[in-house]
This record gives sequence, C-alpha cells and structure tokens, in this order.
Amino acid sequence: MKNYAEPLENLIRQLSGLPGIGGKSAQRLAFHILSMDKERVDALAGSIKEAKEKMKYCPCCGNLTDKDICDICADETRDKKVICVVESPRDVYAMERIREYHGTYHVLHGAISPVQGIGPEDINIKSLLERLREGEAEEVILATNPNIEGEATAVYIARLIKPAGIKATRIAHGIPVGGDLEYADEVTLLKAMEGRRDL
Amino acid sequence: MKNYAEPLENLIRQLSGLPGIGGKSAQRLAFHILSMDKERVDALAGSIKEAKEKMKYCPCCGNLTDKDICDICADETRDKKVICVVESPRDVYAMERIREYHGTYHVLHGAISPVQGIGPEDINIKSLLERLREGEAEEVILATNPNIEGEATAVYIARLIKPAGIKATRIAHGIPVGGDLEYADEVTLLKAMEGRRDL
Repeated sequence: MKNYAEPLENLIRQLSGLPGIGGKSAQRLAFHILSMDKERVDALAGSIKEAKEKMKYCPCCGNLTDKDICDICADETRDKKVICVVESPRDVYAMERIREYHGTYHVLHGAISPVQGIGPEDINIKSLLERLREGEAEEVILATNPNIEGEATAVYIARLIKPAGIKATRIAHGIPVGGDLEYADEVTLLKAMEGRRDL
Repeated sequence: MKNYAEPLENLIRQLSGLPGIGGKSAQRLAFHILSMDKERVDALAGSIKEAKEKMKYCPCCGNLTDKDICDICADETRDKKVICVVESPRDVYAMERIREYHGTYHVLHGAISPVQGIGPEDINIKSLLERLREGEAEEVILATNPNIEGEATAVYIARLIKPAGIKATRIAHGIPVGGDLEYADEVTLLKAMEGRRDL
C-alpha cells in the first residue's frame, strides 16, 4: 500500500490547498476529520458551503455581507462623510475592533501591483470614484497595507480624488504600541520620526 | 457592526474546532474560503463529506479503507505471520513509508490511559486476540507510541499474548537517526544505552 485511499487522498489535497496548511497539517486534519462524528463532519462541510452561498459582497462598499446591503452601509448612524479605503474585508473587521471609527468603508479587494499584473482597473477603485461622485464624502482615509503595493495604491487613489476637492489622508506609520524601539526596522523608525507630533 | 455575519461566524467556529487551528487561523481560512471560486469551495466541502462517507475501518485490522477489507489485509504477498500493533491509522502510513515492513497491522485506535478513563476494553484489543487465536501469527510487534500510555498498552498486550506462545517484541527506543546526542533527553539516552548492540 503505497498511497492513501482515493477519498482520503482527495481530502488531503483539498486541505493542503488552503493557506498556512502544509502537507503534514493537511494529513493530520484529514485523519482528525475521519475520526469525528458524522454530525460534526456534516456541520463542517455544511458551514463551508453555506458561508460561500450566503456571503456576498455589498454592492456599495464591497464588504462581505449576508444581506442585500452590508450592516455598515445600512447603518444610518454611521458618518457617510468619511470613507476608509481598505484592501480586504478582513481589514474592515480589524478596523471595527478599535470601536472608535464611525465612518464607512470601501473594500478594494486587492492592491495595485505591476509585478503581479494587477492594475487599477482590476481592483474596486471605479466604484469608489462613483461613490465619491454621487455621495457626500468629504474625506477618504487610505488604510491600505504599509507595503509597496499598498503605498502605491494609496498614492494612486489620492491623486485621483484630490482634484475633486475631497480630502485624502493616509493612516500613520510608526512604532506599534507595546512595541520595542530596539526591534523596529529602519523604515518604520524613519516613518515614526517623520510623523512625530508636538506633545 | 460588532460581529461577523452568521454564516461567516459559523464557518469560523467550525474551523477553529479542528486541531492546530486557533481563532486567528480559523478567521484567515474562512476569509480565504469565501474568496475562492464556488467550484473549489464545493470540491473542498464535497471531499470532506465524501471522505467521511467512504472511508471506514477494516473489519480485520482496524485500518482506514474505502474497500470491504483494506489493501494490506487483502494483499496475499504480505506476511500474515507478523502483526504490527499501532495506535492509529496514521501510524500505519508512517510504517508503510519505510517500505521495509511486509507484515500486517492491527490498529488499536487509542492506548490504555487510566487517567483519561480509557481501559483495555475501550481500544481494539479484543479483535487482536481473536485474530491471534484464529490466525497464523507468530510475532506481534508492539509499535505503540513511546509514552506512558503507549508503554503500558504494549506491556499489557505482551502479557496477554505470551502465554499463547506468540512472540511479542517492542520497537527500539534510542537516538533518532540524524539526531544530536547533546539534545537527546535523559530517558531517550538511557534507552539508547540499554539497547546497545554489538558492532
């Protein structure tokens, strides 16, 4: 017996295609799944299918939702004058956890990356411009990731919207709270110095 | 928006119940699954259900199989005189990878553990004794894990089968090949000394 049986082999292959799950982890997970109750296995498989079927992107901001319009866009109390632009739905949840931001979001679903062949037309920028044209937004906070792609995307969007008289801001770079100066890389430290404020 | 939408929340909960997948990993996996093509999601969910439905335990040795009798038990060329006793189906695959063992297996599906309330009757020992009574086995290799539960299980089974005139052997403990003496723990080193052989 050189190989796993076909259904087991197939399960391992499917699992090892997920991010952060290598061959060994996929094997461990597969054997664990086979040792679970049938009800739990059905619940697991069902939750995967159901999530994919029910969750879609909000036509307004591009965030994940199981409704026609996402909770944030539908919320009358949220400040429609501010739009926070992020790369992925995960970033929306990260922002929401600070509980201090009461504006709306716009999810780009990626960042401009010439190396990977991702241009401005491949991410959700067009719908942002439409929103800005039709809406009441006064400030766009560019909260793309602090890497080359995220920076390029932020600069690109800022240049597009500034002529329309809309304020474009970028989230601050610097030393993370609780972080250690000693371990900060040079670029972060430089950004922290550049971004220094009066006390 | 304080929480994830219900289908997403449910998916994260199901994923975080798997071994080695904590809350953060479950979130990352869930968002990744939602970003996959519908076909790939269906293939993933389908492979989980199918594996659970099709894979069962071999009535002879207790190993996982998608047939009536597993490939190893059904293989006429395998030596039925030797039975290697292991704790889980994963161990069978590990053994098979050495490509040097041509006997059969018996999967206990656990080990005796008074602390966890697992007694000899809770694991697959009875069917091993039946096999030994009816079969032609002459040697039982006890390849349970080298921990307290595995050792206790090996000793227990050895005592049961020796009176019947069947040879009971235990796999060797010692320094792993490619390992470093310096980093070996005392017990392993002691076992390696005790198990020394003439050169």
